[in-house]
Amino acid sequence: MSKIPFIVKSESAQFYETGFSCDNAIALIFDGQKHFITDGRYTIEARENVKSGVEVIESEDLIADARKALRLSKEKRCAIDPVEWNVKDYVNLRNKLADFTFRERAGFHQKLRAVKSEKEIALITGAAKDNKEAFAAFAKFLTERGEGMSERELSFESKRFLSDAGKRDLSFDPIFALDSNAAKPHALPSGDRLRVTSTILFDAGTKCDRYCSDRTRTAIFDKSGVHFEIAQKFDDPNKQKIYDLVLRAHDAAIAAAKIGMKAKELDFVARKTITGAGYGETFNHSLGHGVGLDIHEQPFINKRGDTVLEEGMVFTIEPGIYIAGEFGVRIEDIVVLEKDGARVL
Amino acid sequence: MSKIPFIVKSESAQFYETGFSCDNAIALIFDGQKHFITDGRYTIEARENVKSGVEVIESEDLIADARKALRLSKEKRCAIDPVEWNVKDYVNLRNKLADFTFRERAGFHQKLRAVKSEKEIALITGAAKDNKEAFAAFAKFLTERGEGMSERELSFESKRFLSDAGKRDLSFDPIFALDSNAAKPHALPSGDRLRVTSTILFDAGTKCDRYCSDRTRTAIFDKSGVHFEIAQKFDDPNKQKIYDLVLRAHDAAIAAAKIGMKAKELDFVARKTITGAGYGETFNHSLGHGVGLDIHEQPFINKRGDTVLEEGMVFTIEPGIYIAGEFGVRIEDIVVLEKDGARVL
Repeated sequence: MSKIPFIVKSESAQFYETGFSCDNAIALIFDGQKHFITDGRYTIEARENVKSGVEVIESEDLIADARKALRLSKEKRCAIDPVEWNVKDYVNLRNKLADFTFRERAGFHQKLRAVKSEKEIALITGAAKDNKEAFAAFAKFLTERGEGMSERELSFESKRFLSDAGKRDLSFDPIFALDSNAAKPHALPSGDRLRVTSTILFDAGTKCDRYCSDRTRTAIFDKSGVHFEIAQKFDDPNKQKIYDLVLRAHDAAIAAAKIGMKAKELDFVARKTITGAGYGETFNHSLGHGVGLDIHEQPFINKRGDTVLEEGMVFTIEPGIYIAGEFGVRIEDIVVLEKDGARVL
Repeated sequence: MSKIPFIVKSESAQFYETGFSCDNAIALIFDGQKHFITDGRYTIEARENVKSGVEVIESEDLIADARKALRLSKEKRCAIDPVEWNVKDYVNLRNKLADFTFRERAGFHQKLRAVKSEKEIALITGAAKDNKEAFAAFAKFLTERGEGMSERELSFESKRFLSDAGKRDLSFDPIFALDSNAAKPHALPSGDRLRVTSTILFDAGTKCDRYCSDRTRTAIFDKSGVHFEIAQKFDDPNKQKIYDLVLRAHDAAIAAAKIGMKAKELDFVARKTITGAGYGETFNHSLGHGVGLDIHEQPFINKRGDTVLEEGMVFTIEPGIYIAGEFGVRIEDIVVLEKDGARVL
């Protein structure tokens, strides 16, 4: 990839390449040269924050100036992500660049970022630590004050702990779902209220210097309250059986992950555990996804994932079982792949 | 527009046409026929919520199924928004549809929604009312407990009032900026703290049944606290002069707005007031934008806006003056254009 110039628009890619990003910029990467093209609102902040060697170009027409910069390239070709570009801008960019070749490579920059540096792993570890502490503080709140509050209210309250009252960004809007709502894919929070005996599914992530974390726990609210440790004790033996099965799939996948394995082989380890117990149909999503500057990035750990897992990749392991109308269980951790296997962050 | 089939992807357009939306769907509109193509996660909820006459199609490959539906059209042509579509999906859609013409019309669906129905105006009015009440409740909080809290903390706290503790969606992430930070375009909240004598710029909006509101007030925090009424009294006569100038531009634009006027003519009314007083350079954005299902939509009220204003259009009037390193003032209201002029919602 580094052999030919490339051009990126997503904020994660802008930031990775230049040390700065904003919602209206194009970054152009030649060998040894980086251009950050943005409008007058952002140039002061951009110049203060870009890495050395990045040239900030103030522009009233970003695409025209990107075209101008491309003309300076001796290569006459450039890689571009066809998912990042809308049709209007892409047509405009290519206009009057007839002798220039655009190589359309979906997700090329996420691929380039899939193996993390030590510094990146440290940031994701920091985010994961903040996240775990926020889970614990939120569990205390739920225990002391949560009973009778609605999903909507508790979903809102969770953000106080996750963001440390507005001081940190979140990786995504958290999911707080009670009982059968946890079995609905992408259900919005409802007016249903937390009671003793409720099952809680909580999926949330905090950021540390723009790097994401991601974690899910399924927990029972009993007379002693709620905690988000992995050992949970359900009164209902059927729920306990399902919870233990998901946990077994989670543990099996973490134990099996190793360098050189294909993503789909890892997915299969967890899926086999759940399918073998007769719940295959209810595990209706992929086992995991890469985590970094984007909350969902390479490698994608699913049934069709041909990516070969490499040392330094960071991804989630998150098997789940969802029984419509009853309840849902998902257990999710982030791991980094090391020489001797996966280590939970 | 309604003469030829069209295809939309944005959630606002999906919802407008079918009564439902989700983050993975394509809506296809023929004369008298509407198809809502989505994946298995959303079909149950979609079927429960779409308007009568909309056919929900469950799909494992949305684009292939959209192609299939297009082939059924006798028209052999279809309007599409080139800003809504990424290059990869668009190439995929057009693949094997060689005899089909795609009319690329940027923003066509927002144009079609620019004039609001009575029901839509009622929803925006409801959102604006909730928003004003949230501003008042937040002002009380600032007065009683805000002193010494940081921009970041107060930005977070404001969402409790705006969302009614998680019960309502917001139109956008609110802007809460103190003193010179209010002069930075798109500044993120800082650690700066609210003090007596601080100037506050607060720009926020709540939603009502998916319709947005949008409002900005600039206020002084004095010994008696803070309020977000439009009459503000600054100790510093220069700040008062600038505030009054922005207010004059705001009032002049609202008084001047009328059916048949071009958007740029209305922009000019406010700009002339500010430029005439020597502050033209500091009013570095457009006068306003349409508000509806999207927070920024047609009509765009700016220097180049050729849109002719029509009865039933709903848009913001939001002049501002920003003095770098000192402070910023913006005063924003939403209006609906009626037979006898603009009415503030």
